[in-house]
Amino acid sequence: MKKALEGVKILDFSRVLAGPYCTMLLADMGAEVIKVERPGSGDDSRHFGPYQKGESAYYSLLNRGKKSIEINLKDEQDLEIIRNLIREVDIVVENYRPGIMEKFGLDYDSVKALNPNIIYTSISGFGQNGPYKERPAYDLVAQAMGGMMSITGYEHTPPTRTGSSLGDMSAALFATYGTLVALFHKERTGEGQFVDVAMMDSIVAMLETNVLQNTVAGINPGRVGSRHPLSTPFDAYRVKDGYIVIAIANNPLFEKLCHIMEQPELIEDERFTTDELRTSHEQELKVIIENFLSSYTVEEAESMLLDAGLPASRIQSIEEVVQDEQMKVREMLVDIEHPIAGKMTLVGNPAKLSATPADPSNAPPMLGEHNTVFKK
Amino acid sequence: MKKALEGVKILDFSRVLAGPYCTMLLADMGAEVIKVERPGSGDDSRHFGPYQKGESAYYSLLNRGKKSIEINLKDEQDLEIIRNLIREVDIVVENYRPGIMEKFGLDYDSVKALNPNIIYTSISGFGQNGPYKERPAYDLVAQAMGGMMSITGYEHTPPTRTGSSLGDMSAALFATYGTLVALFHKERTGEGQFVDVAMMDSIVAMLETNVLQNTVAGINPGRVGSRHPLSTPFDAYRVKDGYIVIAIANNPLFEKLCHIMEQPELIEDERFTTDELRTSHEQELKVIIENFLSSYTVEEAESMLLDAGLPASRIQSIEEVVQDEQMKVREMLVDIEHPIAGKMTLVGNPAKLSATPADPSNAPPMLGEHNTVFKK
Repeated sequence: MKKALEGVKILDFSRVLAGPYCTMLLADMGAEVIKVERPGSGDDSRHFGPYQKGESAYYSLLNRGKKSIEINLKDEQDLEIIRNLIREVDIVVENYRPGIMEKFGLDYDSVKALNPNIIYTSISGFGQNGPYKERPAYDLVAQAMGGMMSITGYEHTPPTRTGSSLGDMSAALFATYGTLVALFHKERTGEGQFVDVAMMDSIVAMLETNVLQNTVAGINPGRVGSRHPLSTPFDAYRVKDGYIVIAIANNPLFEKLCHIMEQPELIEDERFTTDELRTSHEQELKVIIENFLSSYTVEEAESMLLDAGLPASRIQSIEEVVQDEQMKVREMLVDIEHPIAGKMTLVGNPAKLSATPADPSNAPPMLGEHNTVFKK
Repeated sequence: MKKALEGVKILDFSRVLAGPYCTMLLADMGAEVIKVERPGSGDDSRHFGPYQKGESAYYSLLNRGKKSIEINLKDEQDLEIIRNLIREVDIVVENYRPGIMEKFGLDYDSVKALNPNIIYTSISGFGQNGPYKERPAYDLVAQAMGGMMSITGYEHTPPTRTGSSLGDMSAALFATYGTLVALFHKERTGEGQFVDVAMMDSIVAMLETNVLQNTVAGINPGRVGSRHPLSTPFDAYRVKDGYIVIAIANNPLFEKLCHIMEQPELIEDERFTTDELRTSHEQELKVIIENFLSSYTVEEAESMLLDAGLPASRIQSIEEVVQDEQMKVREMLVDIEHPIAGKMTLVGNPAKLSATPADPSNAPPMLGEHNTVFKK
């Protein structure tokens, strides 16, 4: 099968999550990614669980389809190999703290001196400039500093981290976007450039219109749990054996819900006649809805509401997602054949391209697997 | 200033959030985005708050730098205009429910018949195939079905929605990635293709290694609030006037923390001698840390910990983010000049490219502002 990024060469100094996810997205599309790893131990994530036959599934997901060379960045001979590789590649990706690549003589300016048309993508916690650039950054810190935690969770809970590493993942996606834009420009003009992406900036972008609540409306938005701040009933509701979500933002759908609940009198109830009124009486309406739903299971409630044409769904656990027929059809779970661990089930690629589909089924490299190819 | 996507033409049928964010990222980089809007009322998001002088800031953020034409997709004359535009553009983007574009004769196959090399990007709740493809999809439903809610929040709270529209935003980013990969392929080969991105798939991808907890380790991960499931102390902690986060995953940093707390005896405490032990005694350690922090303000605690070289930070509200000096330096807040609302402060673009920087400072179009250009 044709690959869109066939022939695009990437020298990848990145470790753990944000950088590797970016280069994984490019490898899935056919780029040749040469991953630079510390001799002996490799990327830290080789030692992150879960493991299958002693092999890290964490590492495997993020590094499938890449090549691995062991390089000691403090060794002059190894650095010479790196400098030669830099002359041959299109893109360098790194996610060290600002200043570290400079110590190795591998900052953008040095790399550009070796390869004037290079694209050089740096992913960091706070970016390459500004008062925070030297601060230690973890996903938790990015979610905290970027404001996402302050609007996630309930009024009565502390600010809450989103359950996955949103700071890393969003930075990976914006870095992929920036790198692909730069690659398109390089293809047309030959010119390379520096691409600088920060986890904190990425989290702030992911806030979308929440930021405007402050810059335009002067509000400092708080935490409202799973409910919609302006529309009701639009929330997670308790049923007999769990929770479901209902997403109703207009009168016709609300009227349907009242009929399903066999409480048509609620339609005329002066607390509930408009979306705005329902929102100001949100708690009272929630009690009514949960009373009604308390005799239904998740499955019963979901089909009842969907059959009536109401936007609603169960809230799936990770296990339910993994077993979901939709995920099979969408190829969102892919098996790779790991040389040691055997068949391992990883997450697929959500961009479904018809002519040049992603291939997420390649194995990750063993540490130094490609030493003999590149370290000659 | 040079723009990387100069000359790239996009016909944009998308509405509200996911599709418009995707084409906004492309417009920021210089693509010409012609937005197709319903005559008279336009994109629904023109009527979403917050407003400035009656103009939607929501719409402005998502549609800056685009052009607007009013088109009735049920009107044969208007459809003829659209068919002519399709022949001239590189990319079509839409986020209707699967089947709707077909009703207008504007599905991929019909569009491809008009322009064989077109890139056609569809963003939907569940994708163009599979048992859920017809289901109504809102961000809340995508976060619920995709498993993200099940791992966000606390053990004692219901599954929790992330505070921003992660289903829309992640789909927008994966669609941008897919579209740019397709654009690179088209630049090199002339060939277009279909790009199909689903909100549910995108949420599942954003789960990152959480999925592997199930596929590889057989665990069904639950909700652990803001803490790290494997490392401690790695959580949000209460201080005198709010919360801070601390992110410690190894012994040397834990020892530093014990010295700061003037409780060096904790280093030898058999409950806390390894990261694993600290995690199994997580609640006890939290009480000790919060007792210590209770006499410090957020500001005091943050500088004390950062000065000692510990990864820690305050948890910023949206207002604090907006006023953060780092965000000014990083140009993550940009002023546009809106023809009616005047100066409006929107969110910047997190991909900082040196040679072809994004320009996020263009005004959004008034409804039908470019009718006379394109409807001739």
